[in-house]
Order: sequence, then C-alpha cells, then structure tokens
Amino acid sequence: MARKPAAKKPVAKKSAAKKAPAKRTAARKKKGLTKADVLRKCKQLSNWGKWGPKDELGVLNYITQKDIADAAKLIKRGKVFRLGLNLDEHGPQSGLFGGRWNPMHQMLATGTDAVQGIQESFAGMRYADDAINLPTQAATQWDALAHVFVGDKMWNGYDATLVDTRGAHKNAIDKFADKMVGRGVLLDVARYKGKKRLADGYGITIDDLEKTAKKQGVEVRRGDFVLINTGQMADCLDKGKWGGYGGGDAPGLAFETADWIHKKEISGICSDTWGIEVRPNETVDGTNQPWHWVTIPYIGIVHGEIWYLRDLVEDCKKDGIYEFFLCAPPLVITRGTGSPINPQAIK
Amino acid sequence: MARKPAAKKPVAKKSAAKKAPAKRTAARKKKGLTKADVLRKCKQLSNWGKWGPKDELGVLNYITQKDIADAAKLIKRGKVFRLGLNLDEHGPQSGLFGGRWNPMHQMLATGTDAVQGIQESFAGMRYADDAINLPTQAATQWDALAHVFVGDKMWNGYDATLVDTRGAHKNAIDKFADKMVGRGVLLDVARYKGKKRLADGYGITIDDLEKTAKKQGVEVRRGDFVLINTGQMADCLDKGKWGGYGGGDAPGLAFETADWIHKKEISGICSDTWGIEVRPNETVDGTNQPWHWVTIPYIGIVHGEIWYLRDLVEDCKKDGIYEFFLCAPPLVITRGTGSPINPQAIK
Amino acid sequence: MARKPAAKKPVAKKSAAKKAPAKRTAARKKKGLTKADVLRKCKQLSNWGKWGPKDELGVLNYITQKDIADAAKLIKRGKVFRLGLNLDEHGPQSGLFGGRWNPMHQMLATGTDAVQGIQESFAGMRYADDAINLPTQAATQWDALAHVFVGDKMWNGYDATLVDTRGAHKNAIDKFADKMVGRGVLLDVARYKGKKRLADGYGITIDDLEKTAKKQGVEVRRGDFVLINTGQMADCLDKGKWGGYGGGDAPGLAFETADWIHKKEISGICSDTWGIEVRPNETVDGTNQPWHWVTIPYIGIVHGEIWYLRDLVEDCKKDGIYEFFLCAPPLVITRGTGSPINPQAIK
Amino acid sequence: MARKPAAKKPVAKKSAAKKAPAKRTAARKKKGLTKADVLRKCKQLSNWGKWGPKDELGVLNYITQKDIADAAKLIKRGKVFRLGLNLDEHGPQSGLFGGRWNPMHQMLATGTDAVQGIQESFAGMRYADDAINLPTQAATQWDALAHVFVGDKMWNGYDATLVDTRGAHKNAIDKFADKMVGRGVLLDVARYKGKKRLADGYGITIDDLEKTAKKQGVEVRRGDFVLINTGQMADCLDKGKWGGYGGGDAPGLAFETADWIHKKEISGICSDTWGIEVRPNETVDGTNQPWHWVTIPYIGIVHGEIWYLRDLVEDCKKDGIYEFFLCAPPLVITRGTGSPINPQAIK
Repeated sequence: MARKPAAKKPVAKKSAAKKAPAKRTAARKKKGLTKADVLRKCKQLSNWGKWGPKDELGVLNYITQKDIADAAKLIKRGKVFRLGLNLDEHGPQSGLFGGRWNPMHQMLATGTDAVQGIQESFAGMRYADDAINLPTQAATQWDALAHVFVGDKMWNGYDATLVDTRGAHKNAIDKFADKMVGRGVLLDVARYKGKKRLADGYGITIDDLEKTAKKQGVEVRRGDFVLINTGQMADCLDKGKWGGYGGGDAPGLAFETADWIHKKEISGICSDTWGIEVRPNETVDGTNQPWHWVTIPYIGIVHGEIWYLRDLVEDCKKDGIYEFFLCAPPLVITRGTGSPINPQAIK
Repeated sequence: MARKPAAKKPVAKKSAAKKAPAKRTAARKKKGLTKADVLRKCKQLSNWGKWGPKDELGVLNYITQKDIADAAKLIKRGKVFRLGLNLDEHGPQSGLFGGRWNPMHQMLATGTDAVQGIQESFAGMRYADDAINLPTQAATQWDALAHVFVGDKMWNGYDATLVDTRGAHKNAIDKFADKMVGRGVLLDVARYKGKKRLADGYGITIDDLEKTAKKQGVEVRRGDFVLINTGQMADCLDKGKWGGYGGGDAPGLAFETADWIHKKEISGICSDTWGIEVRPNETVDGTNQPWHWVTIPYIGIVHGEIWYLRDLVEDCKKDGIYEFFLCAPPLVITRGTGSPINPQAIK
Repeated sequence: MARKPAAKKPVAKKSAAKKAPAKRTAARKKKGLTKADVLRKCKQLSNWGKWGPKDELGVLNYITQKDIADAAKLIKRGKVFRLGLNLDEHGPQSGLFGGRWNPMHQMLATGTDAVQGIQESFAGMRYADDAINLPTQAATQWDALAHVFVGDKMWNGYDATLVDTRGAHKNAIDKFADKMVGRGVLLDVARYKGKKRLADGYGITIDDLEKTAKKQGVEVRRGDFVLINTGQMADCLDKGKWGGYGGGDAPGLAFETADWIHKKEISGICSDTWGIEVRPNETVDGTNQPWHWVTIPYIGIVHGEIWYLRDLVEDCKKDGIYEFFLCAPPLVITRGTGSPINPQAIK
Repeated sequence: MARKPAAKKPVAKKSAAKKAPAKRTAARKKKGLTKADVLRKCKQLSNWGKWGPKDELGVLNYITQKDIADAAKLIKRGKVFRLGLNLDEHGPQSGLFGGRWNPMHQMLATGTDAVQGIQESFAGMRYADDAINLPTQAATQWDALAHVFVGDKMWNGYDATLVDTRGAHKNAIDKFADKMVGRGVLLDVARYKGKKRLADGYGITIDDLEKTAKKQGVEVRRGDFVLINTGQMADCLDKGKWGGYGGGDAPGLAFETADWIHKKEISGICSDTWGIEVRPNETVDGTNQPWHWVTIPYIGIVHGEIWYLRDLVEDCKKDGIYEFFLCAPPLVITRGTGSPINPQAIK
C-alpha cells in the first residue's frame, strides 16, 4: 500500500488485441479501469454480512479446525522455512515519512557495559537488552482488515472513523491472534512463466494462476493461504539493492484476480512484493491500488506482503510439492492495523 | 530478567529439616546459595563447544526434523491456542527505564483522516497505518542467547563485548528464525499442587516437575519445549492488576532445576511468569537471577517468558492431553537480544 | 491538558456567600460553570480575525521589536535561570498512553563501546551518540495554537481537521521559531498568599493576580510573558513524588482570569503546573479544562506549562525584582502542536 | 561528527609551495597529518584540570555574568533570528543507522479525531497532541563534552566508560542548562572569500578567521560563541538537496584552527555545516575528524553544528554588525550527549 501518488499511466497490454471478442471487451474495460469500475467490483464481490454484522474475521471464517488438522498432515520431512525478512536498517522501505521507515533497533543494555562491571550495582547480574521501533508494515507483514477503507467504510461495513489515533477499534490485527494457521499453497508464477522474476508492471492474470497451479500439480482450495512468487524480492536481494521495491513499480496480481480470490474462497493472499498487486496499477484515473479496494474492505481477505519466499521456492522446485503447513501468527497488537511477522512454512 | 537489585532474603524452606540426609545437604547448600555456587554449577552444566566453536543455537540443536514431523502428528483436532499476551499500554512492565516500558502503538494514518478526504491528494486511496515501539522483552518473548553474560562471556564462550550498541554480533535472535518449532509439553505445576496459582517465592523443584509430568501422563523428551504453568499470570489477569509481576516476587523454577533441564536435554523452557525462576531468588549474597546464569550462557537454552498459558491450561485440563505442536517464530530481528512473539500451540 | 476525564465536582467556594451582591451573582455563575457559559466566554473574548484571516501567531502579535529591545535592558547582573525541568524517566507524566510518557533517552553509541576499540573500524574515531523520544508536552513546554479545539475550529477559525496524523497544517509551533522572546514577569501568587504552595483546587482569581503584582511592585504590560508560581512543582520536587501532578488536582488560574489575560493583552501565560488552570475545574457538567477552551483557541495565547520556576522564585524573593528578559525558543518542529523547551530568564 | 570512515585523501593545498619556509614546514606537516600529530596537539592544547578535577563545563567557564550583561547591550533593534533548522523528515540526515535518522513526528491526537466527537468520552475536550523521536544531533544541535573520546578518556580526564547505555554520567548536556547565553560573533568566511559558499574540502585557516574578523570590523573575545558561515547549508536549501551534507565532504575549519580557538579562549564554536571541520579531513591515515579530537575532549569546547545561519548572515551583511546577543539553551536532557536546539541571535 502506498502513500505515494498512483502511477498515472496503465501498463500497455500489447497482446490484448489478439484476444477473442469476449475477452477483448474485458481487456478494454481493464485498460480503462476507473474508480467507478473499482467501486462496482467492490459491490459485486462484497462479503459484508456473510458472517453476521459483528464479524471481524472476514474470509478467515472459511478455515475449519479440520482444515488445520488436514494441513498438519502436509508436514512430512519436518523441514521449516522462515518467510520473514530480516528486520533491520537494510529493509525495503525508502521513505521515513510520506512512507514508512525501516526497523530501528536500539540497545538498552550491552555486553560492553557488562564487562565494565557497572551492571552489578543496579541489576546484580550481567545482561543485554534492546527495543525495536517499526511500522507494522515495515517488512514481512499481515495487513489487518482495518488497513484499507473505501468511502467512509471498512470491512463488514464498519465506519472508517472507528480507526482513530488510539487505533483500530474494529477489524484490528489482534482478532487474528490464533487464526493464521492452515494450508499454504505456493504459486510460483515466475517459474511458470519461465523467468527468474516477472517484469515490473506485469499483471498476473487468473489464467496465469490457474495454469501455474495446474503445472505444479496443486489444487487451490477453500481456506487456503495462497503465496504468489513473482521473484522480485529474490532479485533485489541478489542485486543488493531494493530500488523501487518499496512502493514503486512491481509485478503483481492483476485487478481481475479479485474475482478468482472471491470464487476460490481462499483465506489469505500473500506475495514477495510490497503490495501484491501490479504496479503501475491498471487504473487510468489515479485511483491507487484498486485491487486493495476490493480485497481488504469488501472480500475481507487479509494480505501478507513482503514475504521472503526464496528458500521455500527453491525447495518446492526441487521436490515438486507446492503445499505445506503454514503457521504465521501476528503479534497480538491491540488495535493494530497490521503486524510484522515471521511466517513458517513447514513441509 | 531484572534490572532491579536482587532480593536480599532467600525463601524460607520450612520442610528442609525433614528431608533425608543427602537431601538435607543439598537443601542447606541451596539455602545458602552464593555466587561461587552458581559459578560452579555453570561450569558443571556447560555445553560450550558441544556443537563446535561456532555454534549459536545451543540446545536447539537437539531438535531433529524427525522430531518436528513427529510433533505435527500431535495436531489432531486442529485447535489453535495463541500464547502471546496482547501488546498494549496495559502490559506487565512497571518501569519506563530502570526496567522496560509497555508496548507503544502509534498511528501514522487513520480512518478519521480518511473520511476528511485528505489522503486522496497524496495517497490516491484511503487507509490506516501504524507503528510499534517496544522492548523486545516487553511481553511474551524469546530471550536470545546473547541476553545474559557471566563474567566476560556469553553462550559458547563468545565475548560479551560482541554485544555492543549496534546489537548482538553473535548469539542474536535472528539465528532462531526457523528453529522455534517442535513438540511442546505443558507442565501445569499449579494444578499438580492443587492450586489456582503457586505462591510468590515458591520454588518449583525437580521433584515437582517429575511428579507433575507423571500425574499428567506425559513424558518430557529430548528437544521438547517445556511450558511451566504457575498460574501467576492468569491470577493477575483475573484481578486486573499486575502488581509485582514485572520483576517482583513470583513463583518459579528453583535453582536445582537447571540440572533437570540439562539432563533432560530439552530445547526450550517457558513459563507464564516474567522470568521463569523463583523470586525472591535462592541466593544469599545479592546474586540476581542465579538460574539465568546457568541456563542461558552455559546450558545454552532459550527462555520463553511472560507466556499467556490460560486457555491452553484450561484445554489440557479438559482433555488430559499435555503435549502439542508448538510453533513460536521470533521476529527476525538482526542482532536482536530477544523478540516479542505470539507462540501457537496446536492440538 | 488532560486525557483523563474531567473532575466531576467543582471546588467548593466557602467564601462566596460573604461576597457583595454583584460578586455573589458572579460567584454563583462560576459555581455552576457549564459548557454553555464556556462557549459564551469564548465568543466574548475571541480575537479571531484581529490580525487578519491568515494569522497563526495570536497575541504574540502584541510583542514589538521595541518591546524586545526594552526587555533586554532588564539584563543587569547577567544572571541566567534555566526554567526547563530535566528531561528523563523521573518526569511528571504518569501514564504511558491515556496520557503521555516521560522522556525516553536511548544511547546509539557509548564510551563502553569505545574503549573496546570497536568504533575505529566504522567511525575512525571514538564517540558517544544518543536519541530522545518524548511527547512534546512531556515536561516544560509550549503549547502551539493547534493544541486545543472548540467545536470544529481552532485559533483564528481554522478548521480542526487541518490537524491530521501528518501534523498541524496551521497554527503549528514552528511559526513561533523566533517569537518567544520578550519581557517576562513572575507573579509569585504562592508567596503573596503566604504559602509555600497553594492548595490543590485553589483557583487563583483576578484579584489575586492584581494584588500579587502590586505587592511585588511590578506592572503587567501588553506583550508580556506572565509566569505564575503556585509552588506545586517545587513542593513535588522537595517531596520526591509527583503524585497527581500530571493531570490530577492542582492549584491554578480560575476561569475568570481569561478576562484578565484578554484585557491585559499579554502574549504568553506560563506556570509551574501541568495545565496552568485550577483542577478540579470549576465546571459542573464534565467540561474539561474550560479555561483552555477560551485561552488557546479564542484569545490565541500560547501556554507555557510545567515550568521549573524554583530558582527564579528564590532570586526574585531576594532582590525584589520580578521582571526579566525571557528567551524561550521552541524547537522548530514542523507541524508540531507543542515543543519541549528550556526557557531562560535573565536578570 | 561522522560514523562514516574518514576520507582517505587529504585536500591538496596548491598554494603551500609558495609559502615562506616556516609556513612550509607547517604546511607539510598538515598535509601529512597523522594520528600521532593529532594526539600531540591534544596534549599541547589540553585544558584538563584548569577548572579543577570535577569540572564538566570546560571553556564555558570563561563566560562571566558581566559578559552576559554586556552582551545584552548588543540588543538594540530587538530583532530576533532563529538559528534552528526545521525538525522534520526533510532533515539533513541520510542514514537511518550507521548514521542518524531525521526527526520523526507522530501525532497522538488529532483534529480529525476531534471533529468525530470521540475525544469527549475520555478527555472531556477536543485537542491535538504529538511526540518526537530524534537523535540529539539530527539537526541544529549542541554537542555535549561527553560526545567525543580520545583513547579511554573524555573532557577533563573522565573515563570514557562513564558513558554507558544509561547515558553520560559525566560531561552531559544538562550541565549546560543555563550556560548557553552570551556574546555571539558571526564570521562570514564565505563572504570574506567572495563566495556564496566555500567549496567542499576547503579548510578555513587561522588567517581566514583573523582577516574575516578584521574585514567585518569585529573583535573576537574571550567567552564568545563564534559562528562560522561557510554557506554550505544555504546552498543546499537553495538547491533543495542535501547531497553529501550529512557526513560527506564539506568546507570547514582546518585542523590548525584548534590553536586559534585555544588561544582566543572562546566558549563555543558553531557553523552551518554538519561537523564544523573540513571534510575530507586533513589526516592521511584514516583518523576521522581530527579537529574534534582536540576541541571537545582536550580544549573542552562545545560544538554547535548544523546551525541555520542564512537569515542572520543576510542581516549582518546589511547592517555590518557581526556581534549579537546569543541565547541557545539546550533541552535539559539528563545524561544526554547532545541536544537539539533553536538558538536565538538577537540584535
């Protein structure tokens, strides 16, 4: 999600002209995506009220205990993958304000202090202590359902004003304290497309998702956490430069994938990019992050962004198994609109 | 771990006199626990070098992939328990400095801003954003092996001066990014003792641990994460007051349990208290947190402190099953000496 | 200024019944001060528009360069008084949130690091460095004119919504970067009343102010910064306990003094208390800090709160001179709603 | 002061060869400035013990009350100049760590909240509140005498280890709470040299200082705060880009000026640059900021860095008066190694 102004020009879709008539209409429509189109899609895919007027979980409701027990059976080798990026000054954020800052880590007590013998007088022992200060979305994170508004509303029709300077009084991240566990499925779209990384501005289509899953021999099911690999983060890490990663251009899900997410009834959508959806966005009128408008506030699906997928991707390529147990607990930040996390994929 | 001076008076052990001769000697020794005794125990239980001179994992090395795969089989009902306390201003810390502060949560963008239509100009959408600032050990946490020193050394003999104001250059928490997964065992010592909560100053003995396990019908094995329930946190939450929880008196493990931890070859020791070990400490000479001196720097075992065990405790009481899959990933804080966490116990 | 609920009971005015008829009416009215009365006074004393529709300085406009040059002549002995309280963990704030926290000071580089010779490799020298994190109103401070709203407005009629999560887009503290210099006058009301400190709940009247000035032989003039000594802070410092200082009961200016401030055309009003005005407040309907409603948003006068007056008070008592040069520059915090300061009174 | 490694190449001094023999020797020596030379100068100019073994004020001791009273007479027009740069995200710092971050400003309560009527329930009024988080040396600042060490010592021979993670137990900034008042003298070296800004790497010599003062018709006296204008900051502000300002190359005082500072017995040395002294430094062996080694720890003189001199410079150019009353109070940060400030020059 960006504080920066939306890109003004949509990505050129050269292949659009070759599509069949029905598809061409859709493509034309997409090429000219406007705020009105976005709002229409919000209404169309809205899950408001589906789990009652007091719901704050959204599509996480799809996950049953049986789903979790079944997902546990995917743990065969006992191999764990950490999907959290290191939290430090080298993080992907590029702006202090007008953006977010990289994690700040400050020491409260050190070993250099300790060896001077100065801690004994007040602590009776020798120790180190520290603190962190970071935006909840500085690095690998879950968005809460309070993170995006459309008009004056957020998920399930709650008023946006329920998120004030004291925090999110509804749809906060602490509601997910024991909910981020289930079946994970990796869709390595980059590999399906035969690339190390997808190009900035490449909008992953429903067709891409379906064919990636098919090629990988994995089925996307209700209640799944779906992880999309674009290869962007691994490429940045290889190059040692984040460049425009934090809010600039990126490969990502095309606007149309909101339909797929809704229909598939998945419970989480995650990727190795800053904001999952393609940038520049497909909108032509400055509507920023249009896919976000539909997914978080209307479908009620949580986003997992800036996930470190590299090691998991390598392993899936090797063993051909693209499903796993996912355990990605948020910090229980009261009234938080997101949380830094270190998700664990276990095979 | 405390910044406050150690309590000066050891807990009276009224029953000591009734013990058999061999035990009596031990008891006397314990009653008069000194820094010299503590240092002797450090040497005796040292695991330094066991996994080579470059090891930074300590007893986490005991956990095998097979252990994790086996632990996954404990997931039967698909029931998840969050073991992380809410992170907010109502946390258990009582001192800003000369201690630690409670989690600070600050909003960077709000719904009250959004409805004024002021975000469109710079963000092109409506959203909320926030940040957190907290000591890594403010609430539910893992200590890193860089957290405690004895003399000028830390785990595996690394120099304490490797922890400076830029952080822990050895034994940092990020080494555990994919290591905090395995079999969890709850030892509900409070329940075994027939109490809702153990009294402050009650030192849990090896005998207590063994008999609790036996009564519960659970075996503690190599590589386990052992969770000790004293009932202290639940009691504080019931009363709505933390009182001396954050560094004051508490029930907890007696010094002698270091032997048990070492012999059992467990991989993590956790509890619902601020510092796991009994307070006032058993030392008579102002040596603060003596058990910490042995466990972290010499045995090389990570501590899980301030864990929210209440719901898990209730469930175990109901179904009589005290083992589960534990997934407790730390944030990947580069050079961190600990991490806030939200562990997940799954049955 | 408090986040805490307003005191419900007004201070009993035992002497009211003895007053003359006209005064009795006023007293009765004051006893029953309501939101409607407060709003009426706001209108009556409003300076909105007085310096044009774009003004963000309020009554600071009264100070002329000649006033400053004249005030400089009050510097005779060259004796400087620091009026800023020490910024540290022992500050007067009592709540982390639901209030404000005390200044946090964190080291970024230390001498204990330096002597280990570890800074040479990256800094080529040995040094210490640090950072602070504090609410702008944590201790001795200026409020900006953006600090208090009435209805949907702030000083000079600007919309309250011009203060959003990015800061105060109007009436911010940075407008005062070179404005906080002039003649200071101390009114030691405590001494006039023959007390070391005024009692909590004591509302200083216009009569008190006039008679204190007269007794001290000092005249309050247009453009002055007036400093009110209640003795509360010195008393807290003597006792080593802040008690209810940070938002609890306190001696302070009665509501009626808003008239005096307006008529006298002074440019700043300061005191040694947390919020200048008397607490419990004189309102009977839960309207919190009623005097603030009038002073900041309508008169347009800046508040100086939590000023350390002790040493200056002692000196004035000795030499009988209650006027001085005041130089109290705010930090130039862009879009800030206040600033920590260390004002200098020079005689 | 830099965390970055010192530049390896000294500035070429083309004119050196033309100097007289005695000067040539000095020049050669300077060209080849080494750590040994720097340490020799430290010893030579040391003021340790001059004001007793317990002194923490250094050359601020030179200022007498009479000096302050005399300086006040320089206030003639009553014109105030703020010398503090705005504190915000656009500040001059370029690195989060491995450097310092720009001031962070976070709102705790906003007008957008207020107009929703949500503050009444807990505050009984409508208000805005905020906090700042910044390195003490993020922008316009005073260094404390605890800021730089040589070997294991700091000013007056205090052990460097007296500055630990809890702060500076000696030589902290709070000792200066009422000391930063006196006569200020601007030396506009850029103007003397006929330039808008001096070039990066230009080392201002003693000769430059003397001739600038002479040309300006101002005398530098014992106890003065001397402000050096290089024009670098104004140039950056004009260009809207800080470039290498925060620790990169810069014009500034040559190493030899330490002698002048010592002999002149001035009480403060300030400039519009990040670190006052010339960068790249004159050292040839990687000794970073050599002038700092001498000035702070040995002469005991406080540095004023990143001062916003533009408006004052313009005014002095106009009226030809380069002396003024300076009032630059630090925040009273207990155990601080510096303080953000907004100095006031008054003419």
